[in-house]
Amino acid sequence: MDQVLAAVDIGGTKITVSLINGHGFLAKIRQLTRKTGENKVVPQQILQLLDQACQTARINRKEIKEIGISACGPFAKTSHGFVLKAANLCGGLAKEKKDIPNDWTEIPLEQELKPLFSRLELVNDAISSAVAEKHFGSGKNVDNFVYVTWSTGIGAGAYVDGHLVEGKNKNGTHLGHTFITTSFAGLPQCGCGDYGHVESLVAGPAIARDFGASTAEVFEKYRQGDVKAKQVIENATHILTLGLVNITCILDSELIIMGGSVTKNWDIVYPLIKKTFYTSFPPLTQGVGIIRSELADYIGDLAALSLIMPVAWIKGWQQHRPWENAPITINLDE
Amino acid sequence: MDQVLAAVDIGGTKITVSLINGHGFLAKIRQLTRKTGENKVVPQQILQLLDQACQTARINRKEIKEIGISACGPFAKTSHGFVLKAANLCGGLAKEKKDIPNDWTEIPLEQELKPLFSRLELVNDAISSAVAEKHFGSGKNVDNFVYVTWSTGIGAGAYVDGHLVEGKNKNGTHLGHTFITTSFAGLPQCGCGDYGHVESLVAGPAIARDFGASTAEVFEKYRQGDVKAKQVIENATHILTLGLVNITCILDSELIIMGGSVTKNWDIVYPLIKKTFYTSFPPLTQGVGIIRSELADYIGDLAALSLIMPVAWIKGWQQHRPWENAPITINLDE
Repeated sequence: MDQVLAAVDIGGTKITVSLINGHGFLAKIRQLTRKTGENKVVPQQILQLLDQACQTARINRKEIKEIGISACGPFAKTSHGFVLKAANLCGGLAKEKKDIPNDWTEIPLEQELKPLFSRLELVNDAISSAVAEKHFGSGKNVDNFVYVTWSTGIGAGAYVDGHLVEGKNKNGTHLGHTFITTSFAGLPQCGCGDYGHVESLVAGPAIARDFGASTAEVFEKYRQGDVKAKQVIENATHILTLGLVNITCILDSELIIMGGSVTKNWDIVYPLIKKTFYTSFPPLTQGVGIIRSELADYIGDLAALSLIMPVAWIKGWQQHRPWENAPITINLDE
Repeated sequence: MDQVLAAVDIGGTKITVSLINGHGFLAKIRQLTRKTGENKVVPQQILQLLDQACQTARINRKEIKEIGISACGPFAKTSHGFVLKAANLCGGLAKEKKDIPNDWTEIPLEQELKPLFSRLELVNDAISSAVAEKHFGSGKNVDNFVYVTWSTGIGAGAYVDGHLVEGKNKNGTHLGHTFITTSFAGLPQCGCGDYGHVESLVAGPAIARDFGASTAEVFEKYRQGDVKAKQVIENATHILTLGLVNITCILDSELIIMGGSVTKNWDIVYPLIKKTFYTSFPPLTQGVGIIRSELADYIGDLAALSLIMPVAWIKGWQQHRPWENAPITINLDE
């Protein structure tokens, strides 16, 4: 129980590093993700944050033997190990749009970090969230479920027949970059450079773009009865729900667990989701549960951790839910 | 090796019943699928065909203890067992279109057939085709592959990380009924009653409808340089390929194996598929193989059989490929 693990959550906006032992969280530290300089700047930033977390927890960094990393993906296998090819971090991947201040086409995470630890697990953050839901959330006793995050991007992770869906490069259940249109004229470009992807039409930034205000403001306007806000949110939710039907068709799931910042407005989006979902292809959608993640506020912390948590710890964590009493995150940008 | 198994392939047009022992096929018999009368007419027809196959092979029907059935799906669990809710057999499922001469909403396959056998395996025909590809085709040593049939309907079956994707009701990888459009105005209705499904836009009947001739004739016209045929086939192939990208995104597959009557025109469709596929979301599509099934002409016979074939037979069948020397199918309608 005294073994200390490191869990890293790499997001498009920020990186969070947590230290954990069998009893709970020892430290959590966060910083805006670095996007300028060489492509090794991200693994270097992870190591610096890890050093600071170790100082906070008064631990020698050499004690950390196992590290779980979840990132927004996608990943690719290369001759120099698993690399991250995330469109929201690697400016070199976009075909036209150029709002990321670098020309990286990949981030060499495995090459830079693996030599420093005895175990490194590296997975798409929606897949690791599904693992967290399986261990600690609503997926506990469910063989066929999907975790879907509706946030800055659209991600998903799933179990089918009790098996975690990973795929050849651990990029499985990549719902955000599935096509939901057949012609692309006049559509906004997806962060990946393509057109017609679910993410480009429904994610938080798409809602903000279609209305012309922040996503939170659009929901605020919706609550005030604004007609355009209603239309924008209904449209995004309709399209996302078609995506939820699609993943249900592909995986024949029995439960959809939703997380991500947009789902904070569950009272608004759930009735809209329900209406489209259950009237679409009833032979597969009938009886499927759709719920908001009960771990929603903690999933980032738990996801990467779930990848490396010793099986012997799980029962105790299920019982004591130490994530609810984690120390306050140290935010290095404040 | 002398144990005799029954394999049944229920299609929208015809039912085929085969008898097999460890050395190969003993009899194959086929008849147009019955669609009038009570919903028990289909299991009754299966039993009659089985009787006739047993007569042909000079076997007592009581010897048949195990039966594998593959059908176009979808299936549902009910209080009276697994039922088939196929839109191309059950007229009662269509919301508007009424071209099937019955009002069935389900076919009680398990209830009618299970009591007569010691083992009944009942699965979507594209899933059982994936099992056949895993045992005898190009899926042999591949952990992540999808089998896609492009025919009267669009079906798929898949392995992810070495596991067959079944899902809660064995309806997994239901590619045909995924949405590929966000608005449905002016679109043709899918056989299931919905709008905007891949199947309704690209399957054989969609190609025939969009041109105004049989699917085979449309390809013939394409070969003669007909402009409209070119446009119809390119459009259908483009949309199907978006579906192939989608399933690749969801399952992170490394190989797509294609079967079904439309793929007989592989020389035409493969170059079109390639063009759309590999330029779409390269982080997931790059390096994915797309091939026509080498079992294409036999997959119907092998699929249902693969569900129940004893493991001990598989090596011998891989070596001797007895499906290539099966007796000629007795067609009761000729």
